[in-house]
Amino acid sequence: MTDVHAPKLVAALREVATLTSIGYVLEWDEQTQMPPGGADNRAQQKALIARLAHARLTDPALGDVLAAAEDEAAGDAPDSDRRAIARQARRAYDRAVKLPGSLVEEFARTTALAHHAWVEARQHADTSRFSPWLEKVLGLCQQKAACLQVPGQPLYDALVDEFEPGETTAGLTEALGSLRAPLSALVQKVGDSGRAPRRDVLSRAFPVAAQETFGREAARALGYDFDRGRLDVSVHPFSITLGPGDSRITTRYHAERFGDAFFGVLHETGHALYEQGLLPEYYGTGLGEACSMGVHESQSRLWENLVGRSPAFWQHFFPRARAHFPGVLDDVTEREWVAAANDIRPSPIRVEADEATYNLHILLRFELEQALVSGALKPADVGEAWDARLRDLLGITPENAAVGCLQDVHWAAGLFGYFPTYALGNLIASQLFEAARAELGDLDADFARGEFSRLRDWLRRNVHRHGQRYSARELVQRATGAPLSADALLRHLHAKSANYFGV
Amino acid sequence: MTDVHAPKLVAALREVATLTSIGYVLEWDEQTQMPPGGADNRAQQKALIARLAHARLTDPALGDVLAAAEDEAAGDAPDSDRRAIARQARRAYDRAVKLPGSLVEEFARTTALAHHAWVEARQHADTSRFSPWLEKVLGLCQQKAACLQVPGQPLYDALVDEFEPGETTAGLTEALGSLRAPLSALVQKVGDSGRAPRRDVLSRAFPVAAQETFGREAARALGYDFDRGRLDVSVHPFSITLGPGDSRITTRYHAERFGDAFFGVLHETGHALYEQGLLPEYYGTGLGEACSMGVHESQSRLWENLVGRSPAFWQHFFPRARAHFPGVLDDVTEREWVAAANDIRPSPIRVEADEATYNLHILLRFELEQALVSGALKPADVGEAWDARLRDLLGITPENAAVGCLQDVHWAAGLFGYFPTYALGNLIASQLFEAARAELGDLDADFARGEFSRLRDWLRRNVHRHGQRYSARELVQRATGAPLSADALLRHLHAKSANYFGV
Repeated sequence: MTDVHAPKLVAALREVATLTSIGYVLEWDEQTQMPPGGADNRAQQKALIARLAHARLTDPALGDVLAAAEDEAAGDAPDSDRRAIARQARRAYDRAVKLPGSLVEEFARTTALAHHAWVEARQHADTSRFSPWLEKVLGLCQQKAACLQVPGQPLYDALVDEFEPGETTAGLTEALGSLRAPLSALVQKVGDSGRAPRRDVLSRAFPVAAQETFGREAARALGYDFDRGRLDVSVHPFSITLGPGDSRITTRYHAERFGDAFFGVLHETGHALYEQGLLPEYYGTGLGEACSMGVHESQSRLWENLVGRSPAFWQHFFPRARAHFPGVLDDVTEREWVAAANDIRPSPIRVEADEATYNLHILLRFELEQALVSGALKPADVGEAWDARLRDLLGITPENAAVGCLQDVHWAAGLFGYFPTYALGNLIASQLFEAARAELGDLDADFARGEFSRLRDWLRRNVHRHGQRYSARELVQRATGAPLSADALLRHLHAKSANYFGV
Repeated sequence: MTDVHAPKLVAALREVATLTSIGYVLEWDEQTQMPPGGADNRAQQKALIARLAHARLTDPALGDVLAAAEDEAAGDAPDSDRRAIARQARRAYDRAVKLPGSLVEEFARTTALAHHAWVEARQHADTSRFSPWLEKVLGLCQQKAACLQVPGQPLYDALVDEFEPGETTAGLTEALGSLRAPLSALVQKVGDSGRAPRRDVLSRAFPVAAQETFGREAARALGYDFDRGRLDVSVHPFSITLGPGDSRITTRYHAERFGDAFFGVLHETGHALYEQGLLPEYYGTGLGEACSMGVHESQSRLWENLVGRSPAFWQHFFPRARAHFPGVLDDVTEREWVAAANDIRPSPIRVEADEATYNLHILLRFELEQALVSGALKPADVGEAWDARLRDLLGITPENAAVGCLQDVHWAAGLFGYFPTYALGNLIASQLFEAARAELGDLDADFARGEFSRLRDWLRRNVHRHGQRYSARELVQRATGAPLSADALLRHLHAKSANYFGV
């Protein structure tokens, strides 16, 4: 129990966490409920909470309590509760004291307003409406990075480190860069194979109400506890924890596309299972928080892709799909359905991309945002650079900016450095899933019965319950017995192209 | 523009308002969205925000800024911007400094938890589950009242003053007490008349989706701006402002009762029109805030009862009701429908009570909570006292505690002193409506066309835009040319009993 160790530190950290969680309530409401008239005031509310949370975290008294806790824990093992809590608190404290409160507040206010500008720009597919906001937000991110930068290291490292503690541009370039050549070759081979699934089976009239019911059923089957969560609609799907016992997810429905909402729900459920698997007694400390965004994404990707697109999963769920959409799938075989869910094909939108090309979408963003942060690329030139890079990587051109450089919410939110964690999540997901299968044996038989608890419990044991006790790379090493690499993901994708495209 | 006057005071007050409004976001979410698992953490969040808002308001620096603003405004007219803003800030500041922060925080935390105990107790119709919480909350209210009490005045006055500034137990006893004999006589006469409307017409199968659509249509017609608000479902309907530009309302639907949701929506719309009619440039100051809870309730009651139950209103809306509920009202005439909406009949539940007996429900609560606050009545004995008093006032006995002493959310929320403002609202509503009709002429012709803007604008001019520039009694005097009294309400109710019951 953390309450026994360093109670003063834990109490102070919980107050920071409570303030931060209030910010999440404001965020969730803004994205799912708030009427347009509330936007300006919401920006004020978020800015104030951000400032207060920052002030609380940088309170010199907290620094004293932290130093005392570090002294007390000095003799403990590095992965003991006391050491881990003090270490993560030190990291948060040191980062926070480097940032002026005024910058934190300005960041919160500007990104709240930039979000609305982005929504509007996207609606009109007009980059010029968003460019001034991108410039503002980027400027704030650069200021932030300059405060946090380790001398001699790239500015971008300081941004990456927020989402993926300890990770660097170099480390990411190595891990993700190794995907590029094999994936380009794979996508090319698939295209050349001349084979394609029956794509029409996922693009039919799927009534939204039935999509919602089916999505809830699947989320519940994976283990999502609706008494400690809820599912809503938002423009950009997300998962968010408003406090222990309250981890919510959102999705968006398209009346003629099955995959958007269904695989989106599986994805967000994966995130939420991680959050619901954190130990509440550690709330407020690093041990009660997800390890990194890459590890977080590994959980969503694992459930969405490795489980949710598997033939075994659909052995159970395809008959359920038929029941939820009477008549719609009469001419479709289970095999055709699964093949369609495992398509590989270049497309402009990241969140709709298949498992293989998805990583190329991330490489594009990873490159562009390094260029933006270093100043090599101007915000006004992003649209052109985007389109050129996409042609280069995937051989396609987006129809307009709404499905091009304006498609993602992240830059408006100031989340530079976040995108690479998505591809990292894909690596980790495959590596964890291989290890789980090796340890647990025939998971397909479980899935075919609609039974996911053995896998979920394995993830709880090997990932969720550790919080930030280990770094992401340590966690992967401990859970899988091997260092983080792209091997498992590439094995999975090659098996997939062989199974569904014969190449 | 208030920004010109005392900018430092206004900035400080806005920060308090922003913190308070964040508490409202937490409250709205809790009542309409939050999964059960979030309850404990929500209590922590609300307690923290309450403590921070209190700390900000009682900051000695704010006291200095306030004193300076008072000096600057000393020569201005009493109802000038500067004087009114300083006066209301002084009131808020002085009240806040009398309350220890620990009490404020404890109050927020306890009432958040008590709310959930109340929900459960009501579900089980079990007073014993709620009594311990009632005792806790009452104890905190008594502590609070003791801090605020004017020496020599009743403890209860200090609680009333929070909701109805300047009002007293004596003033309320006079204003509301004058209703008792005439209303008891009226209810008796109506009962003796042997006449009754066709009550079945409001209790039929009204599909919830159509109820919602119709309710939204009516709210929009009255002038509720959905771009600055929204309508949701909650156990106990309410209206709440999450900040300028974001005034939300809730209702609850009963698939076989038309009135619950529809008149509830009109009621909450009345509240929200007041909030949407406050001037945003005064946000954070007393001039941007509703005058009192009694005046607030006058706005809801005016639209719900004086407009929404009038024959003219239904000239426009009865054909709309027929269209929204095809076939359901084929055997009902407009006259029968309006008569049913104007029924007078003793019933156990306040929020479902008719316009006449409603005030007797309030008198019951007004008496009981005075006894609770003074200590004359023990929380454990409330159920019995409630039932006895209800028999006495209305000649009926509630079937169980869920429709008896557990029916209202208020005591769990620590809102002792709030109930009398409901009856006060009825008085003010009738008095304002008489004055508006006298000034504007034939409003019935407007209503019959579904046109409400002349009345709404009159209320904006005479009530909304003033915020707290005047006290409630001053506001009524200025708007109607007469001091506050029960005369207009009694005239209205007597006319009603004559029209619909011939007595």
